Order: sequence, then structure tokens, then C-alpha cells
Amino acid sequence: MCKQSERARALDASDPLGVYRSSFSGLSADLIYLDGNSLGPLPAQTKKVMERAVGTEWGEDKIKSWNKGWFDLPLRLGDLLGPLIGAGTGQVVFADSVTVNLFKLASAALARQEGRLKILTDDLNFPSDYYAIEGLINGLKQGHKLVRVASPDGMSLPSEELAAAIDSDTALVTISHVVFKSGYLYDLEAIVEAAHKAGALVLADLSHSAGSVPIELDRWGVDMAIGCSYKYLNGGPGAPAYLYVRESLQEELLPLLSGWFGAQEPFSFSPHYLAASGIQRFLVGTPPILSMRAVEPGIQLLLDAGMQSVREKSIQQTEFLIELYDQILVPLGFALGSPRDPARRGSHVSLRHPEAFRINKAMISPIEGRPVVIPDFRTPDNLRLGVAPLYQTFEELARAVERIREIVVDQEFTRFEEGLDVVT
Amino acid sequence: MCKQSERARALDASDPLGVYRSSFSGLSADLIYLDGNSLGPLPAQTKKVMERAVGTEWGEDKIKSWNKGWFDLPLRLGDLLGPLIGAGTGQVVFADSVTVNLFKLASAALARQEGRLKILTDDLNFPSDYYAIEGLINGLKQGHKLVRVASPDGMSLPSEELAAAIDSDTALVTISHVVFKSGYLYDLEAIVEAAHKAGALVLADLSHSAGSVPIELDRWGVDMAIGCSYKYLNGGPGAPAYLYVRESLQEELLPLLSGWFGAQEPFSFSPHYLAASGIQRFLVGTPPILSMRAVEPGIQLLLDAGMQSVREKSIQQTEFLIELYDQILVPLGFALGSPRDPARRGSHVSLRHPEAFRINKAMISPIEGRPVVIPDFRTPDNLRLGVAPLYQTFEELARAVERIREIVVDQEFTRFEEGLDVVT
Repeated sequence: MCKQSERARALDASDPLGVYRSSFSGLSADLIYLDGNSLGPLPAQTKKVMERAVGTEWGEDKIKSWNKGWFDLPLRLGDLLGPLIGAGTGQVVFADSVTVNLFKLASAALARQEGRLKILTDDLNFPSDYYAIEGLINGLKQGHKLVRVASPDGMSLPSEELAAAIDSDTALVTISHVVFKSGYLYDLEAIVEAAHKAGALVLADLSHSAGSVPIELDRWGVDMAIGCSYKYLNGGPGAPAYLYVRESLQEELLPLLSGWFGAQEPFSFSPHYLAASGIQRFLVGTPPILSMRAVEPGIQLLLDAGMQSVREKSIQQTEFLIELYDQILVPLGFALGSPRDPARRGSHVSLRHPEAFRINKAMISPIEGRPVVIPDFRTPDNLRLGVAPLYQTFEELARAVERIREIVVDQEFTRFEEGLDVVT
Repeated sequence: MCKQSERARALDASDPLGVYRSSFSGLSADLIYLDGNSLGPLPAQTKKVMERAVGTEWGEDKIKSWNKGWFDLPLRLGDLLGPLIGAGTGQVVFADSVTVNLFKLASAALARQEGRLKILTDDLNFPSDYYAIEGLINGLKQGHKLVRVASPDGMSLPSEELAAAIDSDTALVTISHVVFKSGYLYDLEAIVEAAHKAGALVLADLSHSAGSVPIELDRWGVDMAIGCSYKYLNGGPGAPAYLYVRESLQEELLPLLSGWFGAQEPFSFSPHYLAASGIQRFLVGTPPILSMRAVEPGIQLLLDAGMQSVREKSIQQTEFLIELYDQILVPLGFALGSPRDPARRGSHVSLRHPEAFRINKAMISPIEGRPVVIPDFRTPDNLRLGVAPLYQTFEELARAVERIREIVVDQEFTRFEEGLDVVT
């Protein structure tokens, strides 16, 4: 272990992204935060932005602030995010939650694809994505079916196996680009190619991939995408989600869910809905401005650092974690819940253990002289270790694995009750 | 006018709610803010809450904050709001935007009312409410029709006229409790009675009535309600909306739009949606916590003051405004765009004038030695003067009318171009 710590320190010393750690608040040597894939920490700059948003924009300028930036905020943030996900301007907008955005786009896609009744997904997708589609097709009563392609190992599905299930009845293929439990990274370009050959559209959930892996929506020809901004984008708890629709498709899509912010002239108060042109039509109600104001600094940090550098360090770090797992954790009954091939892995590593729930409890509980390590637990037996290259050090990873080792070897976890915690 | 100023000062001196003005930030003698019916000002306490939410809850406690209050926040805020709108516990929840909430409830209501094809509203409703229903029925393709009962005077509709249009084919009646342009206040109880006799459900939009008039949802037997929290509730720009479903109806409604926060056990990550019981099932995605954290102080102020006192002062103030209008503004070409009967009027007064747009421009433009007065303009010719008894003084109202008089008499408004501003 000692050798690994030394190596970790050497890697940190030559880390070109090391400078970014000080751009975040609330990080310390006593707390190893491996949960940035669930809730990214607070960028220091965001504190100032929020003071301004609350005190000046709302407090002093009040209603005038709508004309001084709030009204354009959903589109402006969308264009800011664009380069991080390979989207040209006018194709991304911030709005609502991931699930609501999925609903809007899926409903519009099904209408556009009339006559095709199959919505294809896998068994690795985030459940809320299933729920939105189930609700939609139950309500539509038009005979649509949600078909889930089974993954052979419960953690990954080769793109060609998903592609093979796409047929002429497939209206829509929808997957998580990076899978929430295992971190499996799809070859999205290959899926788009197969879908388009069959006349199907593709809707990708980028919640676990935006800010963690390079994404080229325009280049890959992706039709639609959604994602949250509270994970790797560090936008804050429940931060507004975004959606992407490729330009050439925008005018063909009309969401089932429409509201005044998506209307052509909201302030003409026309009694009939006329969809705005462009990406604006995918807005619905008045956006939650305070939450939305918190989104910019996190994106800005990633733009500054560059996704290529972020990805390089992310791979180095997940490889390092897996190396430590091989050496130290395999003998303790752990199994790897993530792909070994870095080209098919996002930026978290899942470790499976029959006692994962209680090990997680022990990790997050403060004990004198030991670091608190925050992973998250995903039922039934996954410990997810999220790596966020902007602030994570290699030394933290080495210390986290050492702490897990200690908890299992010393049977520390047996102090805790079985149960189920609420952690997003 | 001098006499009216004296009377205004006397009314302020004996105003039992006068003490609340200091609970708000950003109010001053140079700025007469009559737009609290569009964006309520910042409660001083909210600044502290937001510092805590950003710096401590997100910044320091990070993911742990979900278990320390964030997860329960939508329901807790709902129960806090309950007494202001006459709702017992477990019937109100904060979520999404007004339009999205309308969509969820209307979709669930139409499914529950299968076989009935008419959705009844008026021609006074907020356009986004029409848009949501138009989108829904277009998508459902089940033959539903949105029927708008015409108001005889374009600003109010006697409840009995709306009631007369409810028939055995009516699935749902949906109206704004207080109408956005004229401030007309419906007799909601009478509408519920008529609707229930015909087997129809009622969905009321409380955006302009919550915090401005007493509401008794439970006692009146209202089925469903929605509303925003950024107007009289002072919850902040685009603050999360809320929805109400009467307890006995909750298990009969299943929204078309479903997501993990409305599922029975979100963290079991079940692949199939099982709706939570109770009001929680009307949640969808992860809520925007920062915006939601800003909502509590504004509600708390209204609870402290008591809706009865708020309503008494509101009637006094709108009566005072109309008196000034009669004396001073009628000779200048203004017409009253709000009901004269205070029992049928909410907490804003609309003044109509052919030059309303440019008069608004002149009012909001700073001129040395004159107060800036912020109303809002609503197309084509409405100046809305919003009265918010927690911070509005009678003197402000007298000064605002004096300023309007001056702008028209001196033709100040002619300095401005015709146009259309974006103000929510």
C-alpha cells in the first residue's frame, strides 16, 4: 500500500488539472468525496453568483432582471454547455428535470414516428427513464411498447446487440450514454448509425456522461439528448436539466407538453399555442431562475480544463482504482461492477460486495483519525466510486481503498444495521 | 390630491400590517413596487436561508443534505402552505412549474373521467393553461375538446354562467381563481358545487389568489389546484410551483407524466413504475432544491400576518386605488379593467388606457425627483397595479396615481416608442 501511496503522490504532483481543486468549496483532507457523480461539490465561484442572483438580481432589480438576463438564461446556458457535448449553438436548452425532458422529447418523437410502435431500451437504464415512457405509452393508448434488451452480464450491452434489436417498427431507441450502476459507456455513434438505417430516432440520457467523457452529439448524428447538471457539471442539488435536439429535427417535433415559455410570443398572450421555432419550443413553464443561476460556474470550469484533459485523467484514475481493487479488494470478496476496458467505461467504478450497504455506512461514518469516504450505495450490492478529475487526487483514491480494506478486514461494518438509505 | 395623501398617511399610521414592510429587502421611497403580483420582492430572511442552502447544505454537507431535509422539502413546503389555501396536511406538494403541474393533473383527471370529452374553461384564463391542455388533447387523440365560455365584458364571468355550461360530457372545469388580467375573483365554491352535480372535476389555478385572498380548498370541495409561488408568496423568480389534490381523490389519479420522485420506493430502482401513495405520486423528477429552499420565508410571513388581515388591507387598498382612479384618472381617459365589487376582486387593479404601453414605459423610467413606479403592462391596454398588503403603503398608492396623472397630463409618455416588453 505504501508504494501505491507514493505513486499516487507522484501522479498528483504531475497532474496538470491539480490546480482546479482549489476552485471548489468544502473539500478537505478529512473527507474523500467520491460522490460527484451523484451531487457535484460547490464551485467557489457559485457562492458569489448566488449572492448576486439573490441579493442584487432578485432583491434590488426585481422584475427588471427578466429583461436583464433571466429570460435568455435557459438558451444562454444551453449554448454554454454546447461545446462540452459537441453541440453547435441553438440546439441545447436548460429546462425542467431530466424525466420531464425525456417525456417531452419522447412524446414528440412518437408523434413524428407515427405508425412505429416500439421504443427500444436496455435493462441498464435509469428507472425514471422507464417510468416516464411507461406513463406516456399508457396514457397514449396507441399500442406502443417499451422493449428492454437484456444485457448478458447485467452491467454492459455490446452496441451491436442493441443495434440488432432495432427494426422497422422501432420508433425510438433510448439509452443512458453512461449507465448509472456500472458506468458502462455506450458507443453512441454506432447506435445512431444502426437506428438511422432502420428509420428510428435516438434519445440519449447524458446524465452520467456530460462532463465525464467527451461527447460529439452533432458529429455522431444524435437526434435528441437529455441530462442533468447536478453531477459532473456541479450545478447544484436538483439543478435544472437540459435537452438537445439536432437542428434539422427541431421543427418536426412538437412536445405533448406545451407552455408559454415555448410559445412563439409568450407576451402576446395568444389564446392558442403556436410553438416557437428552434430549441425554445421545448420550454414549458417559467424556469426556476435561482437554481438555474447556479449552473454556469461548474460548466465554465470544465470548459476551461477541456474535456480531453478531463477524460485523460479520468481514465488514469479509474485505471488506478481498478489496479488497487485487483491488489487489495479482490481478496476481500469484492467483484468489479464496471467494465475493465477504459474505452467502455465512464468516470465511476462500481465495486460489488455482499455487505456493500453496511460497508458504505462505515465509510461515511466519522471515526477519529480516519478519513470519511463518501461513495454511494446502489442496490443490491454496488458501491459506486465516482471520480471527478477536476478535484479528485490520486492520493484520495489510494486512501479511500485503504479505508475500505480496513473496514472489511476489521469487520467495522458489522456495527451497522441492514437497511436502505435515501441517497440520490 | 393633498387630501388623499393625508388620508393615505393616516391609513398607514393605523395599519396593523405596517410592521411587515421591514421584512423585505430592496424597498425604498424612490421605488413604488406594484408588481408583487408578478414577482414578489425578496424577504430579508430568504437571503440568510440561501446563504445556508448554498454554503452549508450544498457546500459543506453535500450529498448528506438529501437525508437532512432536501428529500422531504417538496412535501414539507406543501404542508407549510396548506393553511394559507385551506388544505389539510398531505394534500399539497411543491414541484415543477404551474404548467407542468396543470398537465399532470389534467391528464390524470381525463383518464379518471373516461368517456367525458369536454374540458371547460373561460376566455379569461392564463394562456399557458390553455397551451398545456391543447397539447395534451392533441397528443391523446381521444376526441377531447377544450371549450371556452365567453365572458360578457372581457374581464369577468358570473359563476352561474360558467356553471350553466357544465354538462354530463364535462370531464373537467379549469379556471384561474383570480384572473390574471382583470383580477376578477371567481366564486370557486359555487363552481365546485355545480361541477360536482354534473360529475365533473374542478382544477383551479391559484397563481393570483394564493397569498392574496382567503382560500378554503378543503371546505369548498375543490378537487385539484395548482399555483406558482413567485407572486404574492414571494418565493423568488420562477420559484417552484405547487399542486393540491384532495385526499379522497389522490388514489384515483395517475398522471401521464411519471418519474422516480413519484414512485413508491425511488431508491429500490425498480424497473417498473409503482406510484407512491398520497400526494407524493404527483412528483416526477429531482426537484430544483436551491429554488425550492427560497420558498419558505415568504409563506411564513403570510402565515404570521394571517390571511384575514391581509385580505382586509388588500380590499382597503384596492378600494383606495379605485377611488383615486375615479377622481383623478377617469378624466384622463382611463377605464377600469377590474371589477368594482371588492368581493369579486383579487389584489390587483387593472387600469386600461389606449397609451398604457407607453405610460408603463414612462412610469418605470427613472427621472430626477420622481419615484419610479413599477406596474406591469398586459397587452393590449392594461396597466396592472398589484397590491401586496405585507409591504405596500397607502402613501405609495397615492404617489403612484399622482405619478400616472403627471405622466399623462405632461404627455411624458410620448418620449417612448411603441413596442412590446418581456415582463412576466
